[in-house]
Amino acid sequence: MSFVPTDSRREADAQAALQTAFAPQSVAIAGVSPRTTGWGGGQMFLRAVRNLDRVPQVYCLNPRGGELDDGTPLYRSLAEVPGPVESLISAVPASAILGLIDDAVAKGVKVIHLFTAGFGETGDAERAELEAEVLGRLREAGIRLIGPNCMGIHSTRGGVSWMDDGSSKPGRVGMLSQSGMNASEVVGEGGRRGIDFSNVASFGNASDLNEADFLDFLAHDPDSDIVLAYLEGIRNGRRFLRIAREMSQARKPLVVLKGGLTEAGSRAASSHTGSLAGSAQIWNAVQKQGGFMPANSVEELLDLAVTIERMPGVAGPRCAVLGGGGGVSVLAADICDRNDIPVPWFREQTQEVLREFTPVAGTSIRNPLDAGFMLEGDHMETALSAVADDPSIDWLMVHTGTDGGGPRARQDDNLRQMADGLAAVAPKLSKPLAVVIRQSRTAVGFERGLGLQSALNERGIACFQSIESCARAVRRYLDWQDR
Amino acid sequence: MSFVPTDSRREADAQAALQTAFAPQSVAIAGVSPRTTGWGGGQMFLRAVRNLDRVPQVYCLNPRGGELDDGTPLYRSLAEVPGPVESLISAVPASAILGLIDDAVAKGVKVIHLFTAGFGETGDAERAELEAEVLGRLREAGIRLIGPNCMGIHSTRGGVSWMDDGSSKPGRVGMLSQSGMNASEVVGEGGRRGIDFSNVASFGNASDLNEADFLDFLAHDPDSDIVLAYLEGIRNGRRFLRIAREMSQARKPLVVLKGGLTEAGSRAASSHTGSLAGSAQIWNAVQKQGGFMPANSVEELLDLAVTIERMPGVAGPRCAVLGGGGGVSVLAADICDRNDIPVPWFREQTQEVLREFTPVAGTSIRNPLDAGFMLEGDHMETALSAVADDPSIDWLMVHTGTDGGGPRARQDDNLRQMADGLAAVAPKLSKPLAVVIRQSRTAVGFERGLGLQSALNERGIACFQSIESCARAVRRYLDWQDR
Repeated sequence: MSFVPTDSRREADAQAALQTAFAPQSVAIAGVSPRTTGWGGGQMFLRAVRNLDRVPQVYCLNPRGGELDDGTPLYRSLAEVPGPVESLISAVPASAILGLIDDAVAKGVKVIHLFTAGFGETGDAERAELEAEVLGRLREAGIRLIGPNCMGIHSTRGGVSWMDDGSSKPGRVGMLSQSGMNASEVVGEGGRRGIDFSNVASFGNASDLNEADFLDFLAHDPDSDIVLAYLEGIRNGRRFLRIAREMSQARKPLVVLKGGLTEAGSRAASSHTGSLAGSAQIWNAVQKQGGFMPANSVEELLDLAVTIERMPGVAGPRCAVLGGGGGVSVLAADICDRNDIPVPWFREQTQEVLREFTPVAGTSIRNPLDAGFMLEGDHMETALSAVADDPSIDWLMVHTGTDGGGPRARQDDNLRQMADGLAAVAPKLSKPLAVVIRQSRTAVGFERGLGLQSALNERGIACFQSIESCARAVRRYLDWQDR
Repeated sequence: MSFVPTDSRREADAQAALQTAFAPQSVAIAGVSPRTTGWGGGQMFLRAVRNLDRVPQVYCLNPRGGELDDGTPLYRSLAEVPGPVESLISAVPASAILGLIDDAVAKGVKVIHLFTAGFGETGDAERAELEAEVLGRLREAGIRLIGPNCMGIHSTRGGVSWMDDGSSKPGRVGMLSQSGMNASEVVGEGGRRGIDFSNVASFGNASDLNEADFLDFLAHDPDSDIVLAYLEGIRNGRRFLRIAREMSQARKPLVVLKGGLTEAGSRAASSHTGSLAGSAQIWNAVQKQGGFMPANSVEELLDLAVTIERMPGVAGPRCAVLGGGGGVSVLAADICDRNDIPVPWFREQTQEVLREFTPVAGTSIRNPLDAGFMLEGDHMETALSAVADDPSIDWLMVHTGTDGGGPRARQDDNLRQMADGLAAVAPKLSKPLAVVIRQSRTAVGFERGLGLQSALNERGIACFQSIESCARAVRRYLDWQDR
């Protein structure tokens, strides 16, 4: 049974290559244009790496040589590079790839990331052959491949990235994604939602290193407490399932968004990353056996990360819904109920406490608690504590809009007061708290919402963008805990 | 069978009262505080009315008399008012309501709107009795009642409103809503989405005039081409159903969002408007028989209004999805498929046209068309026309984000180009076009999105806020057309 050792040898090799790819001592970027403006793939990787604290030794390649505006030399080829190169990022066109591969073999590169696209995913037979040829030459040389057709590695600690806006901070959430755009969206939006990332891989066509290799790495990565995944095809379902089950047993949360579950989506996945997306039935079975949390959108991946990081102690589904607006409260209760989140009436004792300072007209003190005023004034602590201490309640959902009428300064004051109040009260509550900042409809309200979210994030309070997404995430997390 | 004429007499009376309420010659507002700052109900109605083009004769009441800063007199009671008063808006507390009612009877008022809350909806027996007493006195005097516990009437043409930000324009969509906040949200957000309103009623507890009366009015209102509804309880289900069916037969679109369909939501509705919300089963039957379009959220009400107003010619569900991003395209196809919106591959002829100017790497020309560049450049007309002329396609969905990287000015330019391009191309296309502006994550992107939306609105192009909401709305509309 020679295939077992061979497979496990290749798997071990893969992990060693990924250790290098996520934190290389030296990187070469092939295809760096001397123009510093514009997108140009190579420049993007260079800017991204230079934004990070830990910058490995970086070499830039361009067949025409010369240098960048800041004097950085452009080497004509890998052979010209004066030091060793552990990791190579290729932003050259597919037509130049074979030459680069041969140079990499000669240079003793350990791992290559092909940002380069235009291979099997195009559906063109010649281009698929080229991909096979690349893979063959690398395999012979013992070099491992990330991609092609992907953004590669983002690791603020490891000093590699494609996210060139400089906004990423090191965090405790890992991610594997077949789509670079979806990974960028999760990391970028994550930053705004208080979710920071440890190690992220965008791996496109997954010709060599596939979803199972990346999951294996993140499952054992001590910097990643939670793992998010966006997948189109599954190359090694059995191994993926085995690792997912191990994570489930170790209570390390894994959340998976699967693209291409419908016929149309599956065809799109084949054009995008050359993936065979498989059927929804098969995926349902995988999901059941894998013991991970499913997500249906990029937003849901982050909703679950927020829930896991900031509401780990939620012990059950029964929710107290607090905020202003009768119609909103009715619809909120409907939404919770539809997501299997009960909204039980408060016990009489709780209602009595609330009744003391709540005007009878235009409010309700049952549950939902329709009394927006108490999120702005002195009664917040009394109200939230009374509700949290109600034994019929497992967690609290406070919701607010940010488009309120009245003078802008007063609105801003109100929200600041609310953020300060919630931050002061939350640690004293006997149950977990979530805050929903309902979608804004004006530019002023949107900015106010971002401000409120960031103030609450800083204090470690879970924030969501809609009542629906909050209820759904808590339900998914509880289902996972219950397994 | 004396009850039949009595009922129909009261129904006819109701319509006459609503004609007055929606366009009164004279209005008195009771409970106007002399302070011009702050919310104060009476002031709000005064500001709202004065923002409109057609201002009826308005009188302000305050038991202490005096005048407003601008010299407007505050009458101590209706008896002091020098001219006739057709319509009365009450913003006095419930404790003062019986005196006001007696004055209104003496003055010969035709219709009263009670913004005043704190009646049966509180669950308090004494307050429920007070509501019954109010209703009894008004009924005896032949005065009809809107509310209590509601925002009343918004009609820019009729000169009555509670929307005091002055942003509303007269339009062709009518609305009835048991929640004032939901009505405000629909009207306010509608303005930003290019949907303007004819006549809107928020009617709270519906003690007297109920959902059937308001639907009757809007069903026959020549200014309302479409009617939206947010309902909690149904007071006269049989009549509501009859009018809904008549509208369905006359092909006048009606969209209904029903709150309180779950147990928790139903309890909340009883606290909010004292409504008996009924079960989901009964509502499903009503929906089936009524032939109207259901909506599950406030956003969906507007999504359907946008679809009906701007894509009336959509002949079938088969959709061409166009935009940039492989992962987004895969998920877009999944979302469409799940909403019963097929995304079929383009015929070979269409692909040939697209192939001519689409780079092979990082794109797909099948469907979804993953080629964001063509929304910015010269190829837009060629691409969109080729796709629209494909016989396997019924409509086009273009999607774009607004958070793109690169310099801000360039991004702004790109979106302006896109808006101009789409506006120029849309009228030439053989199929309807929808544009999805995906949710932004930054303040800059959000503002850019509002700008793009407003530019497209001005040109009559349907805009949506997510791929999901667009697909769902088109599906709902087609289902309604197919009936």
